[in-house]
Amino acid sequence: MSGPSEPVTQVIDAAGAWVVRRLASVERRLREIPAAAGDPVAEWAGSTIAAGGKRLRPLLVLLAAGESAPEDGVVRAAVAVELVHAATLVHDDVLDAADLRRGRPTVWSTAGREAAIVTGDHLFARAFSELAANDRIEDVAVLSRASSALAEGELLQRADAWNAKVGEERYLHRCELKTARLFEAACELGELQAGRPPSLGGFGRRIGLAFQLLDDVLDVSGPAERTGKHRGTDLLDGTVTLPFILAGLEVDLRGVRTPEQAEALCDAIAATGALEESRRRAHAMVAEAKDLLPADLEPRQRDALLLVADGVVERYA
Amino acid sequence: MSGPSEPVTQVIDAAGAWVVRRLASVERRLREIPAAAGDPVAEWAGSTIAAGGKRLRPLLVLLAAGESAPEDGVVRAAVAVELVHAATLVHDDVLDAADLRRGRPTVWSTAGREAAIVTGDHLFARAFSELAANDRIEDVAVLSRASSALAEGELLQRADAWNAKVGEERYLHRCELKTARLFEAACELGELQAGRPPSLGGFGRRIGLAFQLLDDVLDVSGPAERTGKHRGTDLLDGTVTLPFILAGLEVDLRGVRTPEQAEALCDAIAATGALEESRRRAHAMVAEAKDLLPADLEPRQRDALLLVADGVVERYA
Repeated sequence: MSGPSEPVTQVIDAAGAWVVRRLASVERRLREIPAAAGDPVAEWAGSTIAAGGKRLRPLLVLLAAGESAPEDGVVRAAVAVELVHAATLVHDDVLDAADLRRGRPTVWSTAGREAAIVTGDHLFARAFSELAANDRIEDVAVLSRASSALAEGELLQRADAWNAKVGEERYLHRCELKTARLFEAACELGELQAGRPPSLGGFGRRIGLAFQLLDDVLDVSGPAERTGKHRGTDLLDGTVTLPFILAGLEVDLRGVRTPEQAEALCDAIAATGALEESRRRAHAMVAEAKDLLPADLEPRQRDALLLVADGVVERYA
Repeated sequence: MSGPSEPVTQVIDAAGAWVVRRLASVERRLREIPAAAGDPVAEWAGSTIAAGGKRLRPLLVLLAAGESAPEDGVVRAAVAVELVHAATLVHDDVLDAADLRRGRPTVWSTAGREAAIVTGDHLFARAFSELAANDRIEDVAVLSRASSALAEGELLQRADAWNAKVGEERYLHRCELKTARLFEAACELGELQAGRPPSLGGFGRRIGLAFQLLDDVLDVSGPAERTGKHRGTDLLDGTVTLPFILAGLEVDLRGVRTPEQAEALCDAIAATGALEESRRRAHAMVAEAKDLLPADLEPRQRDALLLVADGVVERYA
């Protein structure tokens, strides 16, 4: 598993110590929220959130808002985005019947399907309660739109499973719904807290797309010790990703049933050069994202956002 | 299954034709929303909403708002409440592995668990998008609070399953979370649209509690042709309800494994008089709800709300 520490450290150096303080406030609030629920919700929701991750979406909210935006509102927006993300992960773990996430047992594996479905619902509702305290309806509009897109993206992925005819366009559309829209929302929510009209959505969206593409590359390239999973788990689930599409192999995914077969398919994909091509496209999206940063951004804010963009690439380097 | 038509007709007579028009607008919007999503979401979300039901929660929103509240906002609030309700039902069907709801196949049974989880998430997100268009953050605060409570109530139900030590207080707390809070939210959302400070929440909450109590009585009393289910399905699921609690039988629910055993337990509960006592309590709550109606309500609005309260009781008469 790749740690967040290096890029985050660089971002903090670039942006300033206020980012550290606000990230700490986000973390504190993310612990308070499940604790305020009755048991057993508190335990399940808490373990989901504690499992953590890179807090990349909250970081985008903070940086898009900038130092001068009021802390309370920014922190709530960052927390809300992360809660939606966490809700999605709990439900994903049910869909994928995943035992582990980031090396920890999932709610699904420890408490069962029912607990996981309802824990996700709870986290989702809490995201909107948190955001409502900001007293700005645009915040809710932005986050609910992104949440609808997330669910549609998940549905599209399930609907397209095992379908080798899924092309690049449909794949990118799915990534946009499933991943990029929440990155876009994170940036826009940050800007709204600063009282600026959203201008960083396009940046966030491309970063999110690149993030998903590189994640899909990693599933094929491995190494497994980075991902904590066998190579080719997406393919075993019938999920058609860009490396598979670009490889152009005549393979029926339904015939890929064992981890060994999946690894062999990963090798075959890698041999076509499809991984390099996929990475190249992700890097191009990151470059596009950087170009989209408005010229009038405060220099330190700009530097920090550029570092986040680079961090998405480096995470998979 | 009990139809909504009679009480609704009476309510309409009492309140006026505007209620019919607004209910029709709610219905139209409830069809538009899933249709706007891409396939297959459109199909699954649409079938869930089309399965209908009594639209009791939207009716409460309309009546609590009154005729003079602006139609667009009221309809959106009513739609949002029903979408949250529908989202919960889709997820419930997964939890209960239910093949039918209101006589129609569930998303779970036709499209599978994955589709049902994500369809619920989608409906939930759409509820908040719909409400955000009302441009009033209090709306979001009210609905998200109720949604958190719903999820907590569901979790409590799962956590307490098979636990014969669940007493009346804990049962009522669960009903409050699982059912009453959304009724309360429906009333408050209606009032917010009228620009009035919420005063009908207590009424809504008690109506919701009575509704849940009577639903739980019906599971024990039957007849099955009213519910579309065998008697005692709650007991078979390990769900401890008021009739079981009040009956005070020394029965381990884990030993109740077949529909026949469940029916026998229902007969034993009925023989103790616990059904009458449960009904009596529900009726007392409805009476309390009526007493809580503010004296300064417009008379037609008051009459209509009283009829809804009676309708909850009559539905189970």
